[in-house]
Amino acid sequence: MNYLEEPSNSFIRDEKDKKIKDFEKSIPLIGIPWDWSTAGKPGARFAPQSIRNELYSLRTDVYELNEIKFGFNDLGNVRISPGDLNETSRRIISVCDDVFKKIKEKNPVIFLGGDHSITKSILLSLSKFYNKIGLIIFDAHYDLREVKEGLTSGSWLNELLKDNKEKFNVIEIGISNYSNPSYMKEIAKKYGIKVFYRDQIIDDLKDVFYEINKVKENTDGIYISIDMDHLDQSFAPGVNSPTALGMYPHETIKIINEITRNSKILGIDTTEVSPPYDINNNTSRLAAKLLLYSINSYLGNKNG
Amino acid sequence: MNYLEEPSNSFIRDEKDKKIKDFEKSIPLIGIPWDWSTAGKPGARFAPQSIRNELYSLRTDVYELNEIKFGFNDLGNVRISPGDLNETSRRIISVCDDVFKKIKEKNPVIFLGGDHSITKSILLSLSKFYNKIGLIIFDAHYDLREVKEGLTSGSWLNELLKDNKEKFNVIEIGISNYSNPSYMKEIAKKYGIKVFYRDQIIDDLKDVFYEINKVKENTDGIYISIDMDHLDQSFAPGVNSPTALGMYPHETIKIINEITRNSKILGIDTTEVSPPYDINNNTSRLAAKLLLYSINSYLGNKNG
Amino acid sequence: MNYLEEPSNSFIRDEKDKKIKDFEKSIPLIGIPWDWSTAGKPGARFAPQSIRNELYSLRTDVYELNEIKFGFNDLGNVRISPGDLNETSRRIISVCDDVFKKIKEKNPVIFLGGDHSITKSILLSLSKFYNKIGLIIFDAHYDLREVKEGLTSGSWLNELLKDNKEKFNVIEIGISNYSNPSYMKEIAKKYGIKVFYRDQIIDDLKDVFYEINKVKENTDGIYISIDMDHLDQSFAPGVNSPTALGMYPHETIKIINEITRNSKILGIDTTEVSPPYDINNNTSRLAAKLLLYSINSYLGNKNG
Amino acid sequence: MNYLEEPSNSFIRDEKDKKIKDFEKSIPLIGIPWDWSTAGKPGARFAPQSIRNELYSLRTDVYELNEIKFGFNDLGNVRISPGDLNETSRRIISVCDDVFKKIKEKNPVIFLGGDHSITKSILLSLSKFYNKIGLIIFDAHYDLREVKEGLTSGSWLNELLKDNKEKFNVIEIGISNYSNPSYMKEIAKKYGIKVFYRDQIIDDLKDVFYEINKVKENTDGIYISIDMDHLDQSFAPGVNSPTALGMYPHETIKIINEITRNSKILGIDTTEVSPPYDINNNTSRLAAKLLLYSINSYLGNKNG
Amino acid sequence: MNYLEEPSNSFIRDEKDKKIKDFEKSIPLIGIPWDWSTAGKPGARFAPQSIRNELYSLRTDVYELNEIKFGFNDLGNVRISPGDLNETSRRIISVCDDVFKKIKEKNPVIFLGGDHSITKSILLSLSKFYNKIGLIIFDAHYDLREVKEGLTSGSWLNELLKDNKEKFNVIEIGISNYSNPSYMKEIAKKYGIKVFYRDQIIDDLKDVFYEINKVKENTDGIYISIDMDHLDQSFAPGVNSPTALGMYPHETIKIINEITRNSKILGIDTTEVSPPYDINNNTSRLAAKLLLYSINSYLGNKNG
Amino acid sequence: MNYLEEPSNSFIRDEKDKKIKDFEKSIPLIGIPWDWSTAGKPGARFAPQSIRNELYSLRTDVYELNEIKFGFNDLGNVRISPGDLNETSRRIISVCDDVFKKIKEKNPVIFLGGDHSITKSILLSLSKFYNKIGLIIFDAHYDLREVKEGLTSGSWLNELLKDNKEKFNVIEIGISNYSNPSYMKEIAKKYGIKVFYRDQIIDDLKDVFYEINKVKENTDGIYISIDMDHLDQSFAPGVNSPTALGMYPHETIKIINEITRNSKILGIDTTEVSPPYDINNNTSRLAAKLLLYSINSYLGNKNG
Repeated sequence: MNYLEEPSNSFIRDEKDKKIKDFEKSIPLIGIPWDWSTAGKPGARFAPQSIRNELYSLRTDVYELNEIKFGFNDLGNVRISPGDLNETSRRIISVCDDVFKKIKEKNPVIFLGGDHSITKSILLSLSKFYNKIGLIIFDAHYDLREVKEGLTSGSWLNELLKDNKEKFNVIEIGISNYSNPSYMKEIAKKYGIKVFYRDQIIDDLKDVFYEINKVKENTDGIYISIDMDHLDQSFAPGVNSPTALGMYPHETIKIINEITRNSKILGIDTTEVSPPYDINNNTSRLAAKLLLYSINSYLGNKNG
Repeated sequence: MNYLEEPSNSFIRDEKDKKIKDFEKSIPLIGIPWDWSTAGKPGARFAPQSIRNELYSLRTDVYELNEIKFGFNDLGNVRISPGDLNETSRRIISVCDDVFKKIKEKNPVIFLGGDHSITKSILLSLSKFYNKIGLIIFDAHYDLREVKEGLTSGSWLNELLKDNKEKFNVIEIGISNYSNPSYMKEIAKKYGIKVFYRDQIIDDLKDVFYEINKVKENTDGIYISIDMDHLDQSFAPGVNSPTALGMYPHETIKIINEITRNSKILGIDTTEVSPPYDINNNTSRLAAKLLLYSINSYLGNKNG
Repeated sequence: MNYLEEPSNSFIRDEKDKKIKDFEKSIPLIGIPWDWSTAGKPGARFAPQSIRNELYSLRTDVYELNEIKFGFNDLGNVRISPGDLNETSRRIISVCDDVFKKIKEKNPVIFLGGDHSITKSILLSLSKFYNKIGLIIFDAHYDLREVKEGLTSGSWLNELLKDNKEKFNVIEIGISNYSNPSYMKEIAKKYGIKVFYRDQIIDDLKDVFYEINKVKENTDGIYISIDMDHLDQSFAPGVNSPTALGMYPHETIKIINEITRNSKILGIDTTEVSPPYDINNNTSRLAAKLLLYSINSYLGNKNG
Repeated sequence: MNYLEEPSNSFIRDEKDKKIKDFEKSIPLIGIPWDWSTAGKPGARFAPQSIRNELYSLRTDVYELNEIKFGFNDLGNVRISPGDLNETSRRIISVCDDVFKKIKEKNPVIFLGGDHSITKSILLSLSKFYNKIGLIIFDAHYDLREVKEGLTSGSWLNELLKDNKEKFNVIEIGISNYSNPSYMKEIAKKYGIKVFYRDQIIDDLKDVFYEINKVKENTDGIYISIDMDHLDQSFAPGVNSPTALGMYPHETIKIINEITRNSKILGIDTTEVSPPYDINNNTSRLAAKLLLYSINSYLGNKNG
Repeated sequence: MNYLEEPSNSFIRDEKDKKIKDFEKSIPLIGIPWDWSTAGKPGARFAPQSIRNELYSLRTDVYELNEIKFGFNDLGNVRISPGDLNETSRRIISVCDDVFKKIKEKNPVIFLGGDHSITKSILLSLSKFYNKIGLIIFDAHYDLREVKEGLTSGSWLNELLKDNKEKFNVIEIGISNYSNPSYMKEIAKKYGIKVFYRDQIIDDLKDVFYEINKVKENTDGIYISIDMDHLDQSFAPGVNSPTALGMYPHETIKIINEITRNSKILGIDTTEVSPPYDINNNTSRLAAKLLLYSINSYLGNKNG
Repeated sequence: MNYLEEPSNSFIRDEKDKKIKDFEKSIPLIGIPWDWSTAGKPGARFAPQSIRNELYSLRTDVYELNEIKFGFNDLGNVRISPGDLNETSRRIISVCDDVFKKIKEKNPVIFLGGDHSITKSILLSLSKFYNKIGLIIFDAHYDLREVKEGLTSGSWLNELLKDNKEKFNVIEIGISNYSNPSYMKEIAKKYGIKVFYRDQIIDDLKDVFYEINKVKENTDGIYISIDMDHLDQSFAPGVNSPTALGMYPHETIKIINEITRNSKILGIDTTEVSPPYDINNNTSRLAAKLLLYSINSYLGNKNG
């Protein structure tokens, strides 16, 4: 695994925390500081460090309601090749192949992006180990752009599904009106993606819960991809492309709770946080907490 | 219409977008970069440009739920006379007279303020074409100040209604506690304005819907004036006078949906956005999306 | 009361406002610019001035729903001794002894912090005048840290209750997951503190209302301590330790309305606002409005 | 003098400072919070308060080199009429008439702007008391614009000299290349203004000193007008129109020292500071110090 | 030249300005919004637009000292391929080939970067038209990094000279201590680059002038490349890698004046401005003014 | 030395850098994150981390002019006791006693403050090892305040000299007009401090060089204390108390070069950097570079 760099800060703070290392509930964590596929406002390359800082200042040894404790096994950052997507993608896949083999479904692997294009590489690796993966994406954008030239983080899902349609059952949650060209709707249909516009779920989560459970039943495990721009810009100001009239974080939490109920979570990523545009580090802090809630919800359900 | 200046950016992005020009649903749009009536924090003079930038980066050719497509007919900015309210008002009225005459009720005209005083000039023009106008205002403030000297964007409604009371049926939605002197309550009563404090509608929109429908029935058409400071300061930080404990944008959307149901919308403005105080352009972006939702809701209802 | 310094701005704006001075409903207000107990990001020393600025620009002579009018009796700031907690605490207690004696339960006293450690000194004074005090705290943190050395605003409640457990009935509302070490849960139990995690009250306030009313029945009066970091960081960005997934201000308002119903409010403080980290003064403005709502709710209930 | 409002903060800090009040060297100070003539980025209305804050935190009772002590006699702000230049101008003149009459040349009067248009009103008053005034202006712009309509702070000098050419001997120092239309050069020549481009004085102040002394000899007294935008934007970021490659503050100090040598200073203003665009209040702080240096230099020369 | 996109704002403001179009002194200007070679803080992709905005608000029709007037012929931006350096480089070269052929040495071509890697492509084109080019670079960094993988704007000069050493006579001015690895000194020697550390020229420009004139004599023309990070961070805060103890802008001006004296200037670029990190747009404004001074100095010398 | 905490980032970057460890020129470096003596704007507690980040990103293995290479021996931070000056001072002294004993004059020890009060504790330790110390302070303030109560970083020099006057020969360089009460001048005289106002040295360093050399001759070694607020606020915006019309960094460099010529440097500190008020980390970056220049200048002289 020589494509991994030592993280510049560690999750071990003091003697008490060290005991967490012994927990069987050690969650692997990998940073991917890649944002060279961003056509708009770059900066997500700084997010793995910034989200780690927030994770580091939060407590992972306690959750009041169900007493789940866990620790992170910080594997560091993938050593990206600046500006070279092919080589970087190759390295992400190589690292992931190694980690997914070792972790053997015991716990989800956490990925800190980076722009959203990193999810494609992660899933190319993951799909080697499973026949059918439930892919649940929180995003204001379809990311189904058809790109003729150059890179863009808005095309990764199209590129992934073009050759791997049958490997994934996809739900997209939080799509924002006026933020996507109309032709994407057709592409989504072609790939059988179940789409929930943000406005469709504002007062009622029943429909989205129904589809989530269908996916849980029909797949070997779930991968959750959280593009932070699915959240309203007042909660997530520090992203490449902020969303007015986006989702509220407590809605996301409720949906994640439903996803993790009686399911196997294979991996979770959080992408598109852009620290140079953030306010008081709010978006990194929220990303960190969404990850903690997701893991806890999963572990709580697994052991409940 | 020689008081209009060419807009410095255009809504036509690429070949596909150009087709929008051919839609019958072309919505006239006019900027009014006037903020010399602001007694507090000036800056709204920069909002027409800033909101246009956001409108420009959003898609207007698609709305998932009801498939309405539309385009803007950007008429540019009214050429204001800096610091001279009388002359500027004369020009706004002249431009509006011309536009309202041509548009012949087909579609609402969109106005990008500017401070809230611009709405008075727009309505002085509009009232030449209709006997009774329903005026629905989103605002944290009454704007009924009695001003002896100097200009202020907090007095325009009083000045408008003093001589034109019988022409308007007025609802004010989102008035904020502790943000208005007590004597305004009496003035509102005198003019027969129906007032909804923000706290009155936090859990229940029934009453405000009832009044809206009464206004729709009893007028020749509706003008919607959106002072962005009716929204909570976490959603709308970039305004002259930010509001703590203000309204949430999804409440505004629900009310606008009710306003546009089976009604004739004559015009919509958004005012008081102050880009120098904004965070990541969030307030301009939200203003742009509220306009798109309003137009779509209107067109959808009209064609539904 | 020579430990008080003249406030640098006044609440009397114009002739009409001056009449407020004559109201029997004059609310004493004291600033405590102390933040030397902050281990994290200091800055709360600037909050008394900053919150006063916002109170000054809001109207206190009107509240639409129940027509309560009141004014502040601004007693100025406690003259703190920079860096010297013991001496400063002695002075806070001395000032409070004097004020609580004079005010004789007629109205609540308002305190503008400063970091949360100031509340300990205020309550040490207040507990001289009452047998049993209901202490209702809004906070993302237990503040029950066991500190061996140095100062920290995260230990004040532990220090207070160590010797005065029997004097207080305590409720903590808005505790945030992952923001507190696990051992605090045990300490809270030891002191009989009723704890409500933010996640427990997101959809249902029944339980917290039940506990509030039990406290109201079993005490001689209520003291409300509002650590602004119990609110979500999008609403309260300017605090020492911002909270992702925190409470929404309208939830706080609803709970305060229940607290003030048929009760005797002895004092209210707002702490931990840190102006250097604030956005457009939003957090100070929100703190000011929460105080106005609390006072109004109390006076309205008292006279209703 | 009922057009003056009480200043909101005072220059008297503690017992020792109070003695300054008794000095004969009490300098009158007047704020003029007018920026409605700003065509570009408004905000100078906030400068009188902001510069006062900096003056307040600096010491005026000591200057090491020549032991001059002085105090300010803060007369407050001119009560402007928002948006109404004619009425506001009338009030500035009325206030100035009163003050210039009383001060009887004993000391210069200090004015805190406001945009640069305020200087015209001050000088219209001052010219009633003197036959010939030396007017030395630090500015990156000629301010000789010919304006057909609307207000602009870039035309005041043209408007002043149109009817009062014979009353003033004018030097403009710090004019910036590429910041002025070419026709202004002709107008300056017409009015006999001596112009020094910033680039002309970067290594040698001899020529500007020569012209200054000619003006001192041929006039009844000197008025210094400091538009802060004559300084490089790294020193003065908070102005309406920042200047790249502008002057350095120590150059300005050297020139002011030459102006005050053996001369009678009638008044000094500092204009165009725009606090909303400032960085850490740097521009206000620098404006405050330039005023203190100017006064001290004058008093030191007078008593030397 | 179909790799050029229309610029989004124009240099023609009003009727008077239009005449500039007719000047023979029309200077071609090309933007290159590429920053995917930035290993540090990206953002230079936004600089062509941001510097154009500043150029647009400055006057190009007047320069007091030598009466030179000129206009820009804005050719727009090179249509880059996001993330694809090879394709983008091909396009830059194609555009440059076309422009350099047409311009036929009449005037220098202005390039707005983008990160510093763009200069390599420009010079690869330029070297087709000349036998020997004098390359004078203002930079805090050698940009001679030896890169094994990935892209970086810190290696372009090494890559350029590796195969084209004999085509260029290179001077680097403003190299900053502690900002470059030591091995670069050897590489510079190998390529015969004449290096001036910032500290070597702080009080005396004689040596650098001597070398400049040697280069002028021994080459067919001069290309000036201005990496804005050669300037002190107080003057140029908005760059990828800010420099403490950097050069002052008036030093740069003096050196440019010497370069343009009796010489043929083939092109000038300004690179590494990063608007997201800028303060009040100061760095873009300074870049714009350095370009105007350079052009004026050249034209003045040519015609003097 | 158990009062030292491990630094959170290290100066060892890659294999090549590791060799620096072997240099005999390893400079001990200690952080002191104490700012509880700040009466004004706190934040210097974050500076040791922030300056380390900048030191870390600069190269210490090369200095072009005299080829000196050196490395840091980062001893970490003194474990301060938050809010407890006496205990913290005891720990600083204990750590310093240990380090000064071990280092045996071979190289200067570098200290990263923290507010300026830390220098007192360092010097109390240092004075145990030397009979007469030359103390050269760069500061806009005398720091000779007479404090009756509370802490302040403006009194440390008075407190130090009260009982140790005979141990120190003191020069203060950069004192700012209007920033100090007049009585301090008398105290400075009493202690025999040689004071240089910023204005006295703006064009001529001869006098300050003369006094520096007198101090070098008459003492056993020199301690340099750099309060960053002696620099102009445009260069050092991120300090507790910014200075308008302050010194320029290249002046400081020249003076430091004179100090280190043929002298024994015992220690160097940099204090009062306040990261929360900094711009793009400029002040930390400048502090880091001043330290590198000082060390290099010293080592170069020593070995020259």
